[in-house]
Formats: sequence, structure tokens, C-alpha cells
Amino acid sequence: MYKDQIIIDGLQYCKWDRDYFLSLQKSGITAVHVTLVYHEMARETLTRFAQWNKYFEQNSDLIMPVMNMEDVHKAKSTGKVGIFFGAQNCSPIDDEIGLIEVMRKQGLLIMQLTYNNQSLLATGCYEQNDSGITRFGKQAIEEMNRVGMIVDMSHSAERSTLEAIDISSRPICISHANPTFAHDALRNKSNEVIKSLASRGGLLGFSLYPFHLPNGSACTLDDFCEMIAKTADLVGVDHLGIGSDLCLNQPQEVLEWMRNGKWSKAMDYGEGNASNSGWPDDLSWFKDELGMENIYNGLLKYGFKEKEANQILGGNWYSFLKDGLEPKS
Amino acid sequence: MYKDQIIIDGLQYCKWDRDYFLSLQKSGITAVHVTLVYHEMARETLTRFAQWNKYFEQNSDLIMPVMNMEDVHKAKSTGKVGIFFGAQNCSPIDDEIGLIEVMRKQGLLIMQLTYNNQSLLATGCYEQNDSGITRFGKQAIEEMNRVGMIVDMSHSAERSTLEAIDISSRPICISHANPTFAHDALRNKSNEVIKSLASRGGLLGFSLYPFHLPNGSACTLDDFCEMIAKTADLVGVDHLGIGSDLCLNQPQEVLEWMRNGKWSKAMDYGEGNASNSGWPDDLSWFKDELGMENIYNGLLKYGFKEKEANQILGGNWYSFLKDGLEPKS
Repeated sequence: MYKDQIIIDGLQYCKWDRDYFLSLQKSGITAVHVTLVYHEMARETLTRFAQWNKYFEQNSDLIMPVMNMEDVHKAKSTGKVGIFFGAQNCSPIDDEIGLIEVMRKQGLLIMQLTYNNQSLLATGCYEQNDSGITRFGKQAIEEMNRVGMIVDMSHSAERSTLEAIDISSRPICISHANPTFAHDALRNKSNEVIKSLASRGGLLGFSLYPFHLPNGSACTLDDFCEMIAKTADLVGVDHLGIGSDLCLNQPQEVLEWMRNGKWSKAMDYGEGNASNSGWPDDLSWFKDELGMENIYNGLLKYGFKEKEANQILGGNWYSFLKDGLEPKS
Repeated sequence: MYKDQIIIDGLQYCKWDRDYFLSLQKSGITAVHVTLVYHEMARETLTRFAQWNKYFEQNSDLIMPVMNMEDVHKAKSTGKVGIFFGAQNCSPIDDEIGLIEVMRKQGLLIMQLTYNNQSLLATGCYEQNDSGITRFGKQAIEEMNRVGMIVDMSHSAERSTLEAIDISSRPICISHANPTFAHDALRNKSNEVIKSLASRGGLLGFSLYPFHLPNGSACTLDDFCEMIAKTADLVGVDHLGIGSDLCLNQPQEVLEWMRNGKWSKAMDYGEGNASNSGWPDDLSWFKDELGMENIYNGLLKYGFKEKEANQILGGNWYSFLKDGLEPKS
């Protein structure tokens, strides 16, 4: 039964407010990986943490912070939604390796090494040339491994991603992206990457962002389940989860912040273009509190066993996080 | 017996390195309130935390971080020195109330509202006019009370200190200062402040910094014990501790940073003057790992009971911190 399971959404960036927290609670989701920052550097990241502390204080009947898997169980048993944080770029550590531990202690559990562009650590998926993991990047991965901060390569380029998988002594994740075989986009991942990721114990979270899906906003639930099934044929089900990339109720300016940060004078349209510059239309079957349950039921209907659906909807993320967040002793 | 007790030094700012950690371990001190920052603002404070994380990693056989009283017991039982952090100014929160909780989570357990000068929160002891606790200051005290960050008024002016004692719903401390009756200095505290502090459950840590002592560097152990005895006559022994203000092995530039921060173009000499601009000479009986034990034995010799000496050397700080660090539920 869906409602008895631990359900984990491996990435969201919705407009956070009490209405949305109520909707999250109704959705049956146990815990969500929330994007805390896109391009914010260390000082601005503190303000984001402060804003979330206020959300927790003012909505303590609906949400709670998650630092470990005990907190996930506590969220489940109290009917609250657990929130754990990640950064979509390495901007929160500025240029300082010691900030990895500082940010980890503050509650940043996951960090992407890049967001589309070249960073101090690695190359993003929109760069023409991928030079792989940098000198700082190698030390940063080692430090992230030490303190139990999970490496996320969702927005990274191919070579950098393969190198990160190889360099990291602990499994890494691609929290929100799809296989290129389902939809050819710079943000999606090759079979080589997915196989390498899985062979090292990593996790792939399937994205529901229309730009990452076959047929975009017209992608059907059946198309989505077919993509999962084909990926399971490639690497088995143990390494698959959901990272919905759900961005509900966000204004255009947030999309522009995600795409342009402070780096671009010209408007960058990311996965869109000048004539299609807005948020994509929502999927009809993944736009409200029924979304995750729709996927669960879709998987069963498609032929997945209940145990497999449980794994994909949360069990795999749970196991992955449990191992990955433990600091090395 | 000194060595069986929990010994707490309520303030130090020595030159932190392995040699000094070894000396601290030999001193029998269980836990030390370490000044993390003087004038550093939020971003720079993160770098100080990062530096301490490195000290902890590289000297894990000698020191350990303290976030609560269980950690103090752990330090005692493993023969390590527990380190807990405070700021001598409110600079770590910039102008943002939400950073109180952020810094508390990172391990800033104590914060002074001012350091000699007017701050955003209150008036420092060297200002000519003391306007008391500011609008931001009132909210900051309430927030510190909520999250369990202890208010410290060691470097604050009289009216501000009395108001902070009154406004705070939890006991506050003057971690390192002496009574004016023993030595008349702007940094020392009136009987009115000490009585008000104690009547609200607060704690006074006696300073060993020569500028705060009768006869300066020539102050004898007996003079020091006499000052404690007279203060105990005033408010009892339950509210008295040690906050040595020990600054061993620090170069002149650190003294100048403490006194001038980034605010003064002219050289400010603090408690010194142009012809006496350096560190004061160490006290002969409080300059190395025997210092705290010398005080302990001095108190017994002066006539304090063993139980009272235990309280003053650590027991009172322990009880005060145990209550003060617990977040409000």
C-alpha cells in the first residue's frame, strides 16, 4: 500500500509556503530533498537556512528537518513531511574546502558539483568542453566523502560525471535526470553514465520536469513507467528513485534566476528558447498531491512488483541516504 | 580533589596549536569557553568554524567539541579537553536575526551583545553614552533565549547590562570581568550589576587578565581569593566561576585586532595606553597548566570549603550552561 511506505522525492523546488506544506502532507510523501540554493554563495546560503528555520518554526505541525534516517522515521510516525537540503551548485562553499563540513553541520546533505556551467570543482552539462574534475574538485569530493555530504552530478557533463563516480570513495547520486535513450537532452544521462553510477552503488532519480521527458509536457504516465522499466533492464531496480524536479507555483523570475544566476548579461534560456522562455506546462498526472501515488499505481499497472514500486518510490533513496550521510569515523 | 572535578574555564583566547592543547590537557581543565571571534562578521565566522573543525580533526586525541553537558562528561571520561565557542561581539549575526539560530546550530553557544563599542544590539563599556538595549537587541535577546544561546555582557556598559539582565527570560552571564570594588575599571562591574545578575540566576566569571585585577600583574593569589570571598559575601557562591581571559602566546597584532577591529583608523589602546601598549605581564601563579589548580588550592587555603571551590572552579558554570543551552520547547 502506498500510504504505508516511506516515500521520498529526491528533488523539489516549489514555492514554499504553508499551503504547499499542506499539499505535501496530503501527498503522502515522507521526505523531500529540497533545493536550498542554486547560485547563492556561503553568506547568502546562511540566509536561506535562516528562512527555512522560520518555516520549520511556523509550520512545525506539518514539516520537520531531516538530518538522518531516524528523522525520516520520526516524520513518518508523526505524519509530518521531512525536509532535507541540497545545493544545485557548489556556490555555498565559495572557494573554501573547510566550508563543506560547516555547511554539512548546518544541514546541507547533498551538493551538486556544478550547475550547467563550469564550476571550481567540475564541468557543467552546457559547457562545450568538459575538462573533468578539477584539482579543488578532487579534494572537495574526498572531503564530502569524509563528512557524509552526498555528491550529486545531475547538472554535470559526461566526463566530469564519470570521473566523480570513479574518484568518490562512496556512491554518488544523479538526483534528478533521465536517460538519454528516453529523451536526448544535454541534461540527461548516457547509458555509460547510468551503468557506471549503478555499478558503484549510486542512485538515479527520474525527473518529471517536462524538458527532460519524452514528448515534454505530453509525456504519459505509461511513457514514464516505460522509461523506468527500460532503465531497470539496464541496471536493475535497486539504484532507481524519483527526483521529480517539481517547481510548482514559482514565478518566471525564479526560472530566470535558475538559468542566469548572476553570471549572464544576456538572457540565457536554459532548456527553453526565446520563443519558449517560460515554465513548461505541468504533466496532467504529476501536478498536485496525487503525483507520487499516481506513479506508484502506474508502476504496478505497468507490471512492477509491489516491492519494486516501494523501492523506486522511496526505499532506494532511504538505503542510499542511510549509508551516504554517515560521517566516516 | 582538583583532578576529580569538572573544571571549566569560562573564557580563553590563547594561540591555539597542538602544544597549547597538550598544555590544556595537562592543566586538568575539562572544558573551555573559547572565543571564536572578536569582530568577524558572519562570513568570516564560518572560516573560524572551519579552522576549528581542522583543529578537532588533527588533535582528536586531545580536544573535542562541546555542544551540551553530555559532551562535557564525555571529555572528562576520555581525558580530552572540551571546547565550546562564544563570540565577543554580535558581529557573527551581521544585521540578521535569523543568523542567531544558524550560528547556534553551528556551535556558537555564547554571544556578547557588545565588545566595548556601541553595537546593533547594545552599548559597550567604553562608550560615553549608554542608550541601553536597542530595538534589534530586544528581539535578539528573545531569539537567543529561544534557541539556547547564552547572552554575555562582559564588555557591555552598565545600563545595557542591567537591561539585558531584566529583558532576558533566562539567566545571562558576565563570562570574564571583576567587581569594580576590587579594581575600578570600565570593564569591571558594579555591585548593582553583580547583585542583579545573581538575583536572576546569572553567572560572573572572575577574570585573570591583569588589567582587570587589583595591582595588575602584581596581583597575588591571595588578593584574587579575597576578591572572590568579598563577592561571595555579596551574592553567595552559587553564581561565581572563573573566566580567565587567558591570552597566552598571542602576538601584538592579535591585541591590536581585539582593540581596533576594522573600526578605528587611529590606534586604540584599550585598557593600555601609548606608553603601555603591549600585552600585560603574566601573573606568576596563572600563566601555565598549573593556573586553575593554583586557584583551587588558593581558595581552600583562603578558607573556602571544598564544595565551594568545586563550584567556583567548574560546578557553577556546569549548572548554568546545562540550563542555558537547552532550547526552549
